[in-house]
This record gives sequence, structure tokens and C-alpha cells, in this order.
Amino acid sequence: MYGEIITIGNELVSGKTLDLNSWYAAGRLTAAGLRVTRIKSVGDDYEMVSEALRTTLKESRFAIITGGLGSTDDDMTCEIVANSLNRPLCINELMLNKIKSSVEERGRDLTPSIEKMAWMPEGSTVLSPDGRACGFSLKQDKVYLYFLPGVHEQMRYLIDNVVLPDMLRNFKTLPFVGQRILKLYGITEPEISEIFIDLKGKTGDVVFGFYPHFPENHITLSLQGKDKPKVLRELDRIESEIRRLIGPYIFAAGDQNIEDVVGSMLKEKGMKIAVAESCTGGLIGHRLTNVAGSSGYFAGGVIAYGNRAKVDFARVSQDTLDKFGAVSDNTVREMADGVRKNFRADLGLAVTGIAGPEGGTNDKPVGTVHIGLAADSTMFSVKYRFWGNREEIKLNTSMMALDWIRRYLNGDTFLPGI
Amino acid sequence: MYGEIITIGNELVSGKTLDLNSWYAAGRLTAAGLRVTRIKSVGDDYEMVSEALRTTLKESRFAIITGGLGSTDDDMTCEIVANSLNRPLCINELMLNKIKSSVEERGRDLTPSIEKMAWMPEGSTVLSPDGRACGFSLKQDKVYLYFLPGVHEQMRYLIDNVVLPDMLRNFKTLPFVGQRILKLYGITEPEISEIFIDLKGKTGDVVFGFYPHFPENHITLSLQGKDKPKVLRELDRIESEIRRLIGPYIFAAGDQNIEDVVGSMLKEKGMKIAVAESCTGGLIGHRLTNVAGSSGYFAGGVIAYGNRAKVDFARVSQDTLDKFGAVSDNTVREMADGVRKNFRADLGLAVTGIAGPEGGTNDKPVGTVHIGLAADSTMFSVKYRFWGNREEIKLNTSMMALDWIRRYLNGDTFLPGI
Repeated sequence: MYGEIITIGNELVSGKTLDLNSWYAAGRLTAAGLRVTRIKSVGDDYEMVSEALRTTLKESRFAIITGGLGSTDDDMTCEIVANSLNRPLCINELMLNKIKSSVEERGRDLTPSIEKMAWMPEGSTVLSPDGRACGFSLKQDKVYLYFLPGVHEQMRYLIDNVVLPDMLRNFKTLPFVGQRILKLYGITEPEISEIFIDLKGKTGDVVFGFYPHFPENHITLSLQGKDKPKVLRELDRIESEIRRLIGPYIFAAGDQNIEDVVGSMLKEKGMKIAVAESCTGGLIGHRLTNVAGSSGYFAGGVIAYGNRAKVDFARVSQDTLDKFGAVSDNTVREMADGVRKNFRADLGLAVTGIAGPEGGTNDKPVGTVHIGLAADSTMFSVKYRFWGNREEIKLNTSMMALDWIRRYLNGDTFLPGI
Repeated sequence: MYGEIITIGNELVSGKTLDLNSWYAAGRLTAAGLRVTRIKSVGDDYEMVSEALRTTLKESRFAIITGGLGSTDDDMTCEIVANSLNRPLCINELMLNKIKSSVEERGRDLTPSIEKMAWMPEGSTVLSPDGRACGFSLKQDKVYLYFLPGVHEQMRYLIDNVVLPDMLRNFKTLPFVGQRILKLYGITEPEISEIFIDLKGKTGDVVFGFYPHFPENHITLSLQGKDKPKVLRELDRIESEIRRLIGPYIFAAGDQNIEDVVGSMLKEKGMKIAVAESCTGGLIGHRLTNVAGSSGYFAGGVIAYGNRAKVDFARVSQDTLDKFGAVSDNTVREMADGVRKNFRADLGLAVTGIAGPEGGTNDKPVGTVHIGLAADSTMFSVKYRFWGNREEIKLNTSMMALDWIRRYLNGDTFLPGI
């Protein structure tokens, strides 16, 4: 089954916005065994959008169309569809009610520009599983058309929860597609390539994908087949082969990320953690608390940006700061231990470093970061050197720190420093 | 001058690779006053690529085409161009010599697959300023075609150093393009639409764009013209008209974001800030410290996730917690004041709330957030209700809190709560 993706918006053809929508949709459709033959982006332009729709109806079996569904004047997808497909705009009662109750709930007025969003081409089916996001679908001349909002999170939500399940129902003859995603940290793309050279000849028909996702690397394993149990067994076999070779670098699988994994481990062990963050400025706490239920294991922390805060709230001694400096193993160990005690936690995690672009020296260049971990009767610290700009150094530091927790609780060794 | 961008590669239509090439080219062309009407991605497929070329020759004045120039079997752009444009492949001597010397330099042999890269459609001009990257251009039926490698760095290098200068020479008559970006917070898209209805008839030829960027809304103003000072004056006029109507909602312009703006204001006034974060878990500190030089005005903070931490490190009294609860105006005021004193800062900013999905009650549903600000002799707090999932509530809370600083330092009123 082949089709295309059309993304609509002046922000796309002017290069203002990177088109994450087509990329995401293409990846998800491909993984589900559907073939995307073309991706097209056009501006909020009547003629260009109509032309794209006409071509689709001639050449494809399905299309995902994103953008132009909002309330402003440049949102005219519905109007164009109505004219191009000869389906007059009708008010969709289901949609109107959803809009009304949402507007009421927030204590606002139903203005004409909001009401506009309830007008849809005749024959449309509203796609809105729970009101969190809203699009519509149409079937015209055997072609399935899915119109989704341009807002990435909403589009993504609808693709996963409505569009893909619907397409798989419509195209019943598809083979089963099994997919695994393995997420790695601490191993470079060339190093991963070497591993896969070793694997050659043992991987059967499994298709691999490599996706750098700074500072992580993601690997996908895909396999199609009529026989679902056989496909799954084969994927199991390859996955364990990969885990045998580079297991400790795999920090998560599927939709999980490092904070989910660390959260589950802490919860399972009934342990509490506290953080003392210098160069990350709160990012580690932010990531830990992105997980629902994290209040069960996250005690809190200190953003010890200045030296004063390190002394006052992370129990670092002025002596240590004077002798070794804020960016040192000694300081990070005292921070980890201090925050653990101050927050009455089982684990104290600390980072201190130079995120740049200013503040580097010959001895301690930008990217120098110390990570420390204090537990009941043990204490660890390692000095790392990270590369990149300020945000990349912060991100990499938070990732390394969170991965430390995973490795510590797993009994694995930490990644080597410098 | 209008044209399109075509990117070729199975990795694009399968969603394996994000298409940075079209995004980069679109942004650079637009900034130079050229209009991109369409971006198309197709796989390494003979028919799809030919069709894309045929459409371009009919509808455009230029095209940037990337990908399919390498040495492997699926690289067949040259062959397709040769057949579609009826220009036989000839060996390009300039190119062959470049290849030969590069191969020699590396001590390798000239294999047929490497030599293949010297065969180009008749009439091609090699684009290779210094051998770092290589593409070719063609003029066919008044249409300028630029064929570039798919490797992003190479493509980018050629766009900036060869393609754009060449296009600007070819299209001498380009007008000047002025653009403004205004970033708004606290005003919804429908509310913005209403404002722009009022503006109608006063905006001349300025083109507006609306881009939701949760929880922000961005507006772009674009204007073309031969007379640069006149274009800039006209944009100034429209911008002040908009600022007159919704000035306080505009928190930044151009590339700046709220943390840049707040950082500059604090720096200018020589003030220090400290934060006490409950539901945001460190996100406000993280955002403040994304700005280089933030150590000059950010004293640090406490991630007071649990009640214990609120008492111990943000000076909240146990009495207040017992009487009003952790999510209350009283608590957030004590947090703001406490963290201000603890960190010896001029401003103390605090947030406490329920990010969900668990923890909501009838009285205090998910999304209930209190924001507090303590300064020298004043103290403020407001109760808000935010919508969305956990990450959206955290993000919106951090944005509101940072916007408070901007409004406070500007002497503006805070956004109303519930």
C-alpha cells in the first residue's frame, strides 16, 4: 500500500520551521509496512494545495495531510478540500459540541474564528479520540485522506492513536510488521557500525535503521512476515544477539527514555534520590520529574549554581572549594554526599562543570564535567570531557548522570572518564 | 523569483532521516528574497525523480535538487537527468582530474564506481569551489537547476558558497525582503485573530504569518520591495501598530526567547534571582541557565519537590503547609521569600502546583499552579489553571513564571489568574 504525505504551511516552504511532521509520519507508516512514495510541502496557497490534492487522488492510495486546520485566516485546508473534492462545508455537530464545552470549561467566549473550526467538508469523520487533538478523515475515489493539525504534538498523537490503527484496519492484507527500538548511550555510530559488521550473515531478513539522537543513538530492527509468532521469535533472536555484544550501552527500549527506566528502578527498589546540580542548572531534576509519579522517589534538589549555594545547601566545605575549585572531584563528592544527607535520600547525585562558552581554562576547558554519586556507604566520582555548545554539554551531562543511576542500580561499571 | 526544492533518497521517504537539506535551503533562499513554492522528497526511484524534474521545468524558474550523486548503485540522479532532459552523460574532465588527484592523495585505486562520479549530463557546470564538496548546475528552458550532494554539511557549504551567489547573479532584479518575528504569550490564537481583524486595511502589503509554538504564539511580518529603507519604515509602522494593541503580550522579538530577555533585564539592572521550584522540578533553573553568562544573575535555587524540602530549604513553615497545603498562595509566597533570603538574591521566584496526571482533587484539579514573586519590600502571588499533559503544564508554568519576571521588571501587570 503506497501513498504520500503533504504538509501545508508558509513556515515550511520558507524554512522557518523544520518539517518534523512528515518525518514522523513517514517513519511510523514505513514501520507499519506502508510505503511512502513522496513527501510534499506547500505554502498556505490555494492553488498549490489543490494541485497537491489532485495529484494524490490520481497517484496514491492514501495521504496524510497536515496543517491549515487552525482558526486564523491563513488556515484554509477545509475550504480547499471542500472546493477541490466538491464537498460543501457543513457544520460538524460533534466537533461543535467539543469546541463549545472546551470553551465553556475555560470560561471563554465562542467567537466566529473558534466556531470556524467546526466547519468541515461533507462526509468527514472527526478524528478526536479524547479532545486532546483534532483532525478529520475522508474517503474519496478509493483514496484514504487524513487531515491532521500542523502542531507537532497533536499530529503525532493522532497518527499513533487514530490514523495508524484506522489504516491498518482499511488495508487488511498487510503483512505483520514487527519492530524493536533499542536506545544506546556511550557508544559512537562508527563503533556501532563495527558491531554490525560482526553481525553480518546472522541477521536474516531483519532491516536495521540507525538514528543519531544526540547524545543517544537509536537502532531499529524491523521484520515483515505473514507469521506473527515467527517474526517475533526472529526479532527476539537478533535482539539478544545485539544485547550479548553491547548490552550495557542499551539503556532503554521502545518508547521508554532514561528517566522512565531510572524511575522504575528506583520505585522497584523503594529508594529515594536527591540531586545537586551546578552546570545543568535544574535539567536533571526537570527530566526526573517529567515522569508521572516521580514524587514517590524524587526527594528534590539544589541548583547550586554559585559557590555560596554549594556551601550553604550542599554541605560543600569552603576549604574544598578554595583548595580544589568548584569543578573538581572533591567538590562533586561533597555535593553528592551533602545533598543526600540534606534531603534524607538514599542516593545523592551531583554534577559540576563548565558548560561554556565562557569560563574555560587550559586546565579545565569548556566541557569539563565531574559527576558524583553518594550512596549509603560508598561514593563515586568521575571526570568527563563533553563536546558541543552550551545546551549540548548540559544535555550530555544530564544524560550521563541519569545513566549513572541506571548503571549503579544494575551493578554495571560507569562509563570511563578522562 | 519562485522555484522549488527536491530532495532524493529512500532514507527521506521512509522517515529514517530528517530532511535538514530542504529546511536549510528553504531558509537561505527565502532570506535572499527568492520564493520557494514547494518542497518535494522522493525515494531513489527512477519514475518519481523524473516526474519531479518534469514538473519543475513546467512550473518553476529554479530548483535545488539534493541527493543521489554518490558512488553507490542507488545514486542515479545523473542518469535520470540525462534521460529526462535528453542530455547524454559525458565524462567531465575537470571532475575526473579532481577525482584522480583525490584518489591518488589517499593512496587508493580509481575504481569504476568512483569514476562514475565524473560522468555528468551534457552542458553541466561543476560546482566545486575547492574540492570540499561537489555538485553541478544546468540551465534548461530558462530554468536554473542545481544538483547537490545529500550529505548535509556538503550541501550546506555549496548553497552558501556557490549556489546562492550564482542565483543572485542570475536573478539580478530581486527585491529586498524585510521580516520581523514577534513572540507572544498569554494571548490565544483566536484572540490574536480578532486583533488582526481590527488591523485590516491598515497593513498595506505586509504579509502576516501565525505560528503556534506551545505555549507561545509567534507572528511574522514580511514585506518585499525595491526600496530597503521604505520597507523597513513600513515594517516599523506596522510593528508599532501591533505593539500599541497587544504590546504587553509581546515578550520577545527575532531570535530571542524569554530567558534571553529576562537575562538581559536582570543583567542591566544588576539584580540576582533565585528560584524555588516544586511542580516544574528544575525546569525554570534549566531555562535560565541555558543563557551564556547566566551565572552573573542566577544565584541558584531549590527543587522543593517534597514538603520536607519546602520547610528545610525554602523556609516554608510547617504551620502554613498544614493549614493551606503545599499548593496554595501562602506556601508559594513563603517559598519565594525564603529562597530569596536563603540565596541572598534580589528576587525570589517560586512555583507550586499539580502537574498530574495523578494528584488532582475537586478543589485543586490537575493544572492548578501558584506562582509567587518576592522582591525587596513586595510580594505577589497568583493562582493559575493550566491545561494539557504533564510536560505541557510544566512548560506553561515555567513560561508564566519567567514572563512574571519580565512583566515585574517592566512595570507591567501580571496575567490574571483564576
